[in-house]
Amino acid sequence: MKIEPKILKGFRDFLPTAARKRQFIIDKMRSVFESFGFEPLETPSLEYDEILTGKYGEEGDQLMYRFEDNGKRKVAMRYDQTVPLARVVAQYQNELPIPFKRYQIQPVWRAENTQKGRYREFIQCDIDTVGVATPLSDAEIIVVAAKILETLSFKNFTVLMNDRRVFSELIENGSVSKEEMDYAVVAIDKLKKIGEEGVINELVNKKFSKERAKDVLDLIRNREKTDTIKDISLYLENFPSLKEKTKFEPTLARGLSYYTGAIFEFEVEDTTGSVCGGGRYDNLIGMFAGKQIPAVGCSFGFDRIVEAMDALNLFPANLANSTTTVLVTIFSEELKQKSFETAAKLRKQNISAELYLGEIKEKNPLEKQLKYANQKQIPYVLIIGPEEARNNNITVKDMQSHSQEKTTIEDLINRIKKQES
Amino acid sequence: MKIEPKILKGFRDFLPTAARKRQFIIDKMRSVFESFGFEPLETPSLEYDEILTGKYGEEGDQLMYRFEDNGKRKVAMRYDQTVPLARVVAQYQNELPIPFKRYQIQPVWRAENTQKGRYREFIQCDIDTVGVATPLSDAEIIVVAAKILETLSFKNFTVLMNDRRVFSELIENGSVSKEEMDYAVVAIDKLKKIGEEGVINELVNKKFSKERAKDVLDLIRNREKTDTIKDISLYLENFPSLKEKTKFEPTLARGLSYYTGAIFEFEVEDTTGSVCGGGRYDNLIGMFAGKQIPAVGCSFGFDRIVEAMDALNLFPANLANSTTTVLVTIFSEELKQKSFETAAKLRKQNISAELYLGEIKEKNPLEKQLKYANQKQIPYVLIIGPEEARNNNITVKDMQSHSQEKTTIEDLINRIKKQES
Repeated sequence: MKIEPKILKGFRDFLPTAARKRQFIIDKMRSVFESFGFEPLETPSLEYDEILTGKYGEEGDQLMYRFEDNGKRKVAMRYDQTVPLARVVAQYQNELPIPFKRYQIQPVWRAENTQKGRYREFIQCDIDTVGVATPLSDAEIIVVAAKILETLSFKNFTVLMNDRRVFSELIENGSVSKEEMDYAVVAIDKLKKIGEEGVINELVNKKFSKERAKDVLDLIRNREKTDTIKDISLYLENFPSLKEKTKFEPTLARGLSYYTGAIFEFEVEDTTGSVCGGGRYDNLIGMFAGKQIPAVGCSFGFDRIVEAMDALNLFPANLANSTTTVLVTIFSEELKQKSFETAAKLRKQNISAELYLGEIKEKNPLEKQLKYANQKQIPYVLIIGPEEARNNNITVKDMQSHSQEKTTIEDLINRIKKQES
Repeated sequence: MKIEPKILKGFRDFLPTAARKRQFIIDKMRSVFESFGFEPLETPSLEYDEILTGKYGEEGDQLMYRFEDNGKRKVAMRYDQTVPLARVVAQYQNELPIPFKRYQIQPVWRAENTQKGRYREFIQCDIDTVGVATPLSDAEIIVVAAKILETLSFKNFTVLMNDRRVFSELIENGSVSKEEMDYAVVAIDKLKKIGEEGVINELVNKKFSKERAKDVLDLIRNREKTDTIKDISLYLENFPSLKEKTKFEPTLARGLSYYTGAIFEFEVEDTTGSVCGGGRYDNLIGMFAGKQIPAVGCSFGFDRIVEAMDALNLFPANLANSTTTVLVTIFSEELKQKSFETAAKLRKQNISAELYLGEIKEKNPLEKQLKYANQKQIPYVLIIGPEEARNNNITVKDMQSHSQEKTTIEDLINRIKKQES
């Protein structure tokens, strides 16, 4: 019985070209994270249900993959990387340095509505600095995120910054009631999407008078930089390329209720929504430790970054090709030894070289091999037939220009190395 | 309410040092795989239950993580990477080049008995060449696996090779019955572990006479290389370092019943069991395509490789340290700008540099910072106090030798670069 090959909706296969692009981004991120002293952390895909449930609100509990394992334990699949981080910080608190700076790049699972173009399995890339509350630690997260975007070749991006105290101070000084602010934060977060009128309408629906809605919007809009934001800005001045990209935006709210201080979002050209967002959340990480532990961090929208890089053509062109640089064809049973030796020579020079592994037909031995190189988009095909073997040289076919010439293996090695450098 | 921070048995957190070791191996593997033209593939963690069940025998179905998702679909977590590969080959057969050479490095989940030291979540690293049946494609898998071990600095390893036809031909020529062979293969696979007597006893328990058991064992032991093994050996002669490590071993059986031709296992010194094993399996990959598709591949025992490398001390020493090379301390509010600039200078030279992010105490500002560097095993600590600022130099503390000296940032950069090269 033949079973139909298919995958679950919201889940994806990544064939080589897509997988190479993903790996390209991950490699760049890791090297930037590590250059700032962030260390890798991996946590299990499955956790005890009680560790995860109730941490992401009602929606989170609904979207979480939860089940009973073979031992009748209630388990849940990783939903984000912040709650596992909180568990790790509590569980190993005597081993971890403070600040604990970690990065984590693992898949998470959410039973999202796939009709909205959302995925049910996707990679999260997080950095967090745990255990310190200095504006410098906030600023560093922003610098790292900016460095990632620069390293991925994004030229035009904007960093919007705000401080949750912009809202809380208005409550403290009596300008806006706590209840009003709860509605205002939700509405104002959509300012860019629905415009001023939209925000006011939304507040009117929440029983604000039109005048009061306008007043509250203006009260927020006219707020000035908090001390934290000033401190962060001061540090950012060390990075001239960043300075002009950074903007204080008092209407930036970010949905998650757990933020307690600085918040920020990165937007790149031609992409709606942010590619990275984060902030300070001093009351969350301590939940398993039973004490307050300050923290700041950010999360990259991995799929959005892939999409934006595709749209802006930022991936290196050779990622679309095979990882192989040279296909070494085999001309005949008698000559195959020559091909084996040549492929080994190329690899010794760190040039990715592939031998054709299929059957070699006596009549027209190269036909299938060239077709294979074409399909895999291998840039060079190397031919060692009787004539080449006799003269101790090789024929190189450039698959892009379709030109072909006789040369030596040493010359080809030099040429490829020159191109790569 | 405080929730106890704990993880499910058989699952693991990987704190920075462990995570760095894992990543070190994965990076090396990827680069070797790609140098031979193997391309990355990723498949979903969850598949339709019907795709996975029944493919791994009764034991597999029992150990598999299976559940009903929120949409009442029966789903199962990835159990290996071969069945997903078979699905991919069928699903995208018009897009994939033949041979399709892919590598895959993803976690799999099995509800194993943890008392036997087994994990329930572990990484598999597989390479497979699909669509060709040549001995050259078998040989290449062996060469790649050997190259991986060499790249990971294993000096002494052995490659045991056999051909499943060693067994099937004895059935075909009437020397051993099919039923006898089924028992013999299972028993003989344990020859190394339980010795000749053990194998014979096991066969006697299966109703062999003692004489017949000896005869069958000898019949197998005295088999000679098949043509495939001869062809593979011929190709391996191109790799002098491999030649003396390779051994034809007619008693090697490998448990999995799906192998159809060449099989092999890699053993490294001081480690029981194999760190890599594989072979040809021409009847498995086609299961979703409804036609026979030849394939050969191997799988690395990732956790075993980590353990063997730890035991043999093969990890580079600096993996035990932080990823950070230099901690740039902050002496005071007034001098912090100097530290910011210095850290940025180091990073521009691709030297991983970290600023201390905690509060700086006026009295004894360096105490906590040095403790942090010590705990994270950061090799160099850089101090810019009032004197250093005045003289435009820096103090460098070598945390291993505990020596300390005044120098310039340029000098430190040169020194670190020299060490790294």
